[in-house]
Amino acid sequence: MLVVAIDPPVREEKDKRIDILVRGVDEYVSGYKIGIPFLLKHGKQGIRRLRRLTEKPIIADLKLADIGDIMSTTVKHLANTGVNAVIAHAFVGYNGALETLVKTSMVTGVGVILVASMSHDGSREFIDKHIDEFLDLAVKAGVEGIVAPATRPNVIRYARERLGGSIKIYSPGIGIQGAEPGSALCAGANYEIVGRLITGSKNPGEAAREVREIQLKRWSKCHHG
Amino acid sequence: MLVVAIDPPVREEKDKRIDILVRGVDEYVSGYKIGIPFLLKHGKQGIRRLRRLTEKPIIADLKLADIGDIMSTTVKHLANTGVNAVIAHAFVGYNGALETLVKTSMVTGVGVILVASMSHDGSREFIDKHIDEFLDLAVKAGVEGIVAPATRPNVIRYARERLGGSIKIYSPGIGIQGAEPGSALCAGANYEIVGRLITGSKNPGEAAREVREIQLKRWSKCHHG
Repeated sequence: MLVVAIDPPVREEKDKRIDILVRGVDEYVSGYKIGIPFLLKHGKQGIRRLRRLTEKPIIADLKLADIGDIMSTTVKHLANTGVNAVIAHAFVGYNGALETLVKTSMVTGVGVILVASMSHDGSREFIDKHIDEFLDLAVKAGVEGIVAPATRPNVIRYARERLGGSIKIYSPGIGIQGAEPGSALCAGANYEIVGRLITGSKNPGEAAREVREIQLKRWSKCHHG
Repeated sequence: MLVVAIDPPVREEKDKRIDILVRGVDEYVSGYKIGIPFLLKHGKQGIRRLRRLTEKPIIADLKLADIGDIMSTTVKHLANTGVNAVIAHAFVGYNGALETLVKTSMVTGVGVILVASMSHDGSREFIDKHIDEFLDLAVKAGVEGIVAPATRPNVIRYARERLGGSIKIYSPGIGIQGAEPGSALCAGANYEIVGRLITGSKNPGEAAREVREIQLKRWSKCHHG
């Protein structure tokens, strides 16, 4: 239900910070999401260290958006770090791009999650105009999940209706970006991605526990209330 | 005129390989392009090492396609490695994305190059449908360059006509991907990005010299012949 996004700021407290964070939140979360800033800060070694700290899934949110060969090489590099899934953009298309990525995914066991919509305003400028095609592409490519923003619950609802239950929906935008914990779950998401609200807290473990509690409260209300 | 793309394969010869490569090709090239595979293989330290090996511009081709805050954090991380420019996708839009990236670019001095079109087939599925909007966005955002594929010279010609001379055009797809050296320059590109044709050669320096020679021959023909 809860995925913690670890996006280290440029001037960050020691790497030990991550160990403390994971020990604090691990029992409350379904997995972790790391991005390019994490990679630049900690490198491949950082991913391996995170892997040793938790048995929960690690999602590499590199927002891959390149030709097939490059995305494929990237996934092969990630495969031996213990990463479980990568996030890629649907926008690059199937032929010569996602087609190749999905093949590599099957060989390496690293899952693919496609961006169907984003949490910022600019997502409306181009990406959201193709939401139907992106959702069809997710089904065609047989990816394990898509990303849809908690900041726009109707996009999540729409995606859930169109996709049915088989494809997981990961939803960023909870907390600092404005959406309430549990709101995306109620709209049909499987996981809510929370970053600074937890990682920025003085007590990340306690923050994660609280987010989890709010998620469960709201979820049980919207499903059984 | 010539930018060398360094995309290390997963099982790569020692890191020293890059030192040899750069020493061999440096006199023939205008700059270097590194991607996520390079980052995963060599980390930030690898970029710093490359920086010490050459005074030519280094372009970080991360195909950034995230919300503004994340792209901004990424550029701040890269700024202190000696990277001169980053490649980002136009399709994430301006509001809350490129708008933020361009501001950070002005503060850090790391230039922004926007993907207007790509070299693979799938580029036609979504990206190429927005080429006009992407080119207008490049002008609006005031980026230093765009990326357009050598594999589709008319896209380059079209972009050059629409952009005028102020914005640089970087063109991948030369060599293994099919386009002839010099062909993108003749279509209106400022730089041709060449990877495996040079980096895969037993003698990269000689390969770069040859590519340069073919570029100049074709270029002088199409401009004065």
